Amino acid sequence: MERVNWQGTDLNMLETLTFLPKFKPGTVWLVGAGPGDPGLLSLHGLSGLQQCDCVIYDALVSPHLLELANSKAQLIFAGKRGGRPSVRQQDIIEILLRQARLGLRTLRLKGGDPLTFARGGEEIRALHQAGIAFRIVPGISASGGLAYAGIPLTDRQHNSVVSFVTGHAMTGELPHGLDWKALSTASPVLVFYMALKHIQAIADHLLAAGKSPDVPAAIIERATLPDQHVQIGRLGNLAEMGLAAEGPSIIVVGTVVDLHTIMAWDPHHGLRRHKDGHEYKVGS
Amino acid sequence: MERVNWQGTDLNMLETLTFLPKFKPGTVWLVGAGPGDPGLLSLHGLSGLQQCDCVIYDALVSPHLLELANSKAQLIFAGKRGGRPSVRQQDIIEILLRQARLGLRTLRLKGGDPLTFARGGEEIRALHQAGIAFRIVPGISASGGLAYAGIPLTDRQHNSVVSFVTGHAMTGELPHGLDWKALSTASPVLVFYMALKHIQAIADHLLAAGKSPDVPAAIIERATLPDQHVQIGRLGNLAEMGLAAEGPSIIVVGTVVDLHTIMAWDPHHGLRRHKDGHEYKVGS
Repeated sequence: MERVNWQGTDLNMLETLTFLPKFKPGTVWLVGAGPGDPGLLSLHGLSGLQQCDCVIYDALVSPHLLELANSKAQLIFAGKRGGRPSVRQQDIIEILLRQARLGLRTLRLKGGDPLTFARGGEEIRALHQAGIAFRIVPGISASGGLAYAGIPLTDRQHNSVVSFVTGHAMTGELPHGLDWKALSTASPVLVFYMALKHIQAIADHLLAAGKSPDVPAAIIERATLPDQHVQIGRLGNLAEMGLAAEGPSIIVVGTVVDLHTIMAWDPHHGLRRHKDGHEYKVGS
Repeated sequence: MERVNWQGTDLNMLETLTFLPKFKPGTVWLVGAGPGDPGLLSLHGLSGLQQCDCVIYDALVSPHLLELANSKAQLIFAGKRGGRPSVRQQDIIEILLRQARLGLRTLRLKGGDPLTFARGGEEIRALHQAGIAFRIVPGISASGGLAYAGIPLTDRQHNSVVSFVTGHAMTGELPHGLDWKALSTASPVLVFYMALKHIQAIADHLLAAGKSPDVPAAIIERATLPDQHVQIGRLGNLAEMGLAAEGPSIIVVGTVVDLHTIMAWDPHHGLRRHKDGHEYKVGS
């Protein structure tokens, strides 16, 4: 098997990766940027950034990724900044359609995965209706955030089911119609996205549904970033832990959380690191 | 913001990506290779392959990825081939420990994500016990396979919960103790990993739990690969569809499957592509 060695060579690296497709003019790539660490972008994502004519990016996307874009590419911000209101979804869609119709290679860069509690589907519907071809480049989702906190999504000794729940419905409230009893019974591990605002209600619902207050629980803030912060506790004090958290957070409830004593590591120093206490900070 | 332009330059690309950490001698990186398409590897994964001294890889890992390894790296196969028995997990762990203790930069390359229905946790336990430092590089999991079939894991108009279930417990059987009724009630979208062997039992359990036979369902074989094959149907004929499937498959049950009529695209020609019928082939 032939292998390529980049070191000390002057290859145009991406051109040697023949499995990476060309970005055709007038098409749109929906690219998942992953949870935050720019090293979690996929090769397709990098290839798209190198080939594109414009990038329409969200607030949570790493600046390092924008630096990887082709130097001629136009960078268009489509997120929320400071106190200003977020760009409306309909406006983002109109920008996508306009750029693609101009014949531009249009890269839509979204945090996480475009089709996991994101609004990628709405953008794809619009592209479909407009007859604009697209590529979906999946991104690493919450599982990556858990891995950086030393918490496995699944473990054979703990769970054969894991469930993801959004804490943020269209209205900004917890989704209606969740069957908390069934959720608690069905899934030994629950991962809540964008749920910090409703952490008290989530804890109350799970306790009322019969989950023990002793079930391990964690809050992972700014997952995978250098200032990632992990709090480890129990369902019984989850809401209290939430008071000390801010910014984008993943909430995990289930016995896999306890594995962080074995699996925690330091993404920014490449070493395992864990304390005896219930809280530790990675990358400090 | 400064941006780098590789095109026509003689950069050693990875060295310019200062956010990618050094692979320290005597440490182990557990790298998720993603569902199959080598373009779904992360930049950390590529960086690890370029820096490592040896790669211990599974059967489902793309040969393209092995070609990206440092030309001096030793490639060690640890999967199942032909009729021969799989390398035992304990043997893989012993290889990992031996290589790391020799001071080698040891890259463990696993299909999918190392901590999602994989056995990454067992390997990490052994590294922890041996005092060997490690890094976890998450991989794209089943969500990526769904995206390549034009099926979103979540959609605001369809679900605020999605559940992943392994179809393959330690014994090779369906996991014991699944509460099918709770699972059916809790989660409008169910994704089954490695479940083809038990597809009849899964369909029977879901129907007995009260899921309608009209709920849309899909089987995605060899997800994200050039010969990916997607069958679209209903829960009522899922088991029958399974007879026509072989090889690694993801099974999806839920109304999001219907969105493939809008979201299906051709990963190998960069165009959307869908037929009126219930079956289509991508990349043919």
